[in-house]
Amino acid sequence: MSAALPLDADRLWGDIMALAEITEAERPYTRRSFSPLFQKGRAWLADRFAASGLAARIDPAGNLIGRAEGRAPSLGVIAVGSHSDTVPSGGRFDGIAGVAAGLEIARALRDARLQLDHALEIIDFLAEEPSDFGLSCIGSRGMAGVLEANMLDMTDPRGGTLRDALRRVGGDPDCIAAARRHDIKAFLELHIEQGIVLESLSLDVGIVTSIAGIRRLEIVFEGAADHAGTTPMDLRRDALVAAANTVVAVRHAAERLAAEGPDYFVATVGILNVEPGGANVVPGRCRLVIDVRTTNPALTQKFVAEIDRDSKRHAEEARVSRRALVALSDGPPAACDPTLRTRLRESATELGLRVTDIASGAGHDAAFMSRICPSAMVFVPSRHGRSHVPEEWTDRDQIARGAVVMLQTVKSLDRSLSGDARADEGVR
Amino acid sequence: MSAALPLDADRLWGDIMALAEITEAERPYTRRSFSPLFQKGRAWLADRFAASGLAARIDPAGNLIGRAEGRAPSLGVIAVGSHSDTVPSGGRFDGIAGVAAGLEIARALRDARLQLDHALEIIDFLAEEPSDFGLSCIGSRGMAGVLEANMLDMTDPRGGTLRDALRRVGGDPDCIAAARRHDIKAFLELHIEQGIVLESLSLDVGIVTSIAGIRRLEIVFEGAADHAGTTPMDLRRDALVAAANTVVAVRHAAERLAAEGPDYFVATVGILNVEPGGANVVPGRCRLVIDVRTTNPALTQKFVAEIDRDSKRHAEEARVSRRALVALSDGPPAACDPTLRTRLRESATELGLRVTDIASGAGHDAAFMSRICPSAMVFVPSRHGRSHVPEEWTDRDQIARGAVVMLQTVKSLDRSLSGDARADEGVR
Repeated sequence: MSAALPLDADRLWGDIMALAEITEAERPYTRRSFSPLFQKGRAWLADRFAASGLAARIDPAGNLIGRAEGRAPSLGVIAVGSHSDTVPSGGRFDGIAGVAAGLEIARALRDARLQLDHALEIIDFLAEEPSDFGLSCIGSRGMAGVLEANMLDMTDPRGGTLRDALRRVGGDPDCIAAARRHDIKAFLELHIEQGIVLESLSLDVGIVTSIAGIRRLEIVFEGAADHAGTTPMDLRRDALVAAANTVVAVRHAAERLAAEGPDYFVATVGILNVEPGGANVVPGRCRLVIDVRTTNPALTQKFVAEIDRDSKRHAEEARVSRRALVALSDGPPAACDPTLRTRLRESATELGLRVTDIASGAGHDAAFMSRICPSAMVFVPSRHGRSHVPEEWTDRDQIARGAVVMLQTVKSLDRSLSGDARADEGVR
Repeated sequence: MSAALPLDADRLWGDIMALAEITEAERPYTRRSFSPLFQKGRAWLADRFAASGLAARIDPAGNLIGRAEGRAPSLGVIAVGSHSDTVPSGGRFDGIAGVAAGLEIARALRDARLQLDHALEIIDFLAEEPSDFGLSCIGSRGMAGVLEANMLDMTDPRGGTLRDALRRVGGDPDCIAAARRHDIKAFLELHIEQGIVLESLSLDVGIVTSIAGIRRLEIVFEGAADHAGTTPMDLRRDALVAAANTVVAVRHAAERLAAEGPDYFVATVGILNVEPGGANVVPGRCRLVIDVRTTNPALTQKFVAEIDRDSKRHAEEARVSRRALVALSDGPPAACDPTLRTRLRESATELGLRVTDIASGAGHDAAFMSRICPSAMVFVPSRHGRSHVPEEWTDRDQIARGAVVMLQTVKSLDRSLSGDARADEGVR
């Protein structure tokens, strides 16, 4: 990529670093959705929007939106965005990089005195990370028209409702249906990869093919919490033995399905509780949670059937009982739009960047946006793949490269979508 | 066994039930060593000792001892006992049954106007269960002369020393060496089995062959706590996968060694900590604790070597590191005295009881007593093998049968040991 960038990498980097300063002092980098610090961050963002000539507003679903009008308002909107909230003790880039990139794209166009035919909107989606209400992607759900009434009734640990919290951040839960958009023609999101694929392959950007669906399964084994000294091996009902065999089976099945290709597949046992948990007591109860992510729901079906069968056998072999599998959550995968992916790849290639297709194992606002408009994502590298930790890191130039790919694609889309719209007019 | 028992089963049962009433009200049955309730229980016991004609005292190691003098003081002591402290939320029988059985034996002899040649001592050992100082079998260690100065310096969570606590319960830490006994010719302990062997085989009593040695091993696996969604299977360093394979290996090795016979062998993973323990995070660190118990230390050697080798391989396969195994504790097994075991079996058989030899997987005061005198144990059945829980249960008659076996053996030993002593005199 040439040294003369069509945007200001330092200005973009400066915004990310400035927003990082708005954090809980004791546990950087924390700016939890709905918190006063979150509101402070958004006030800062809204100021930056205004200073960049964007009209800032908050929609009924609590999304902060900066808008530059287009020359042909009837064409609708090209939208770019991500989120400014963080997990506790998170990083400086997850979400923020995508919002800042959107803002820099708007400024770069303005600096170049380039008004698009479409309106351009930069969106800071509300509460992408799991919030205190136990729900993630609240803003993008709202914009996609799937933030249901029962979700608005969800409560945080202090008993407050999402409905009230939404009101506090400037949303309008009574008119939540009005958040549903019909005028967005394309949505693009830049995000850090949160994995080590790009770094491992020394690539600049990843064009996301699909955002994995996430299913969470709970398995509980119940045996007998007998004395570890006095219960002979052949009379034990050890719940951990069954659970350990299932952990091993999950690993083997996931490795096999991932290796089969071409679909993305990962499965993880991240939670394993052992009760009562004393050195001298045979484990009487074990609970494990399996996180399954894939771009192909058929693989999840296959995997769950296999683990259901295997874990039953592990329970029988250990003479313990196994409760029915419980699906704690189940979100379908979302494919990124093929046309947008082609445009992103063309832009990257023209810029001389090293690019690859990549599946997203993490959830993103783009998954909900893909329900209402063509959507796509650009990943930039994460150092050592670390994310959701203070060490989370992406270099200034890596973010700038991703943002330039987005900028060029926005310009190219503005032209091609206008052409499509005019062709449609001609046919009519 | 005939209906006319040589002791009073109801009186024995009444003592156990009365002592059970001295408990923390909110979490029966709790009477932790060194606590005010423990002291209250001991005051009640000392009263019962006195009412039964026993002279009560507390030795320098804090053991409560009731003594009936013998006709030939130079012959020394036959001792019977166990402990009156409990684990938190424990049962009514673990320890208490043995102390109460000793008391009933003394009363039965007195009722029958039968003074032994030997002195008879009923011992309530101090703090058999793991205490707040992290040490178990404090009283029997002291009586065996192995309660070391560094142990007296151990502290509880409030910073108090065992030395001071020992003083509070009437012991004398400055003269701890005086607790070491040289005059005990035989020690017998009745205890609930805490396992399900006797119940499974519908037996009345078990004659303990050996008290297993206990080794506790800690294994720590360290990998990388990566994002469960974005880290492909082949780039993971999942500590739980290594730990789960090791749990399975522990089970298989223990089953094989237990099945080989004739030695007792059990191994248990009762503690498995998974960090950070989030559904969407690959486990970065796992710690497991293995409890290994056997009557044959060579089996422990064999087992540990095998698990050391296996767990290293599991770490390599999961691309995680494994720290060196840490021995958290290591106590040798204690064989019960063959002559005492023969006498106990003879008594049981004469009484028409169903009897078996049985290894003790749990630790007991008798293990320390075996260092200074011939020692043996009688087990009575535990319902469903449950112990250290409020549901812990042994029927009135089951306890009475065990106590009668002990009573008859005490009488038989008094005769035979007197004969031996006289024979020794004759030889001299």
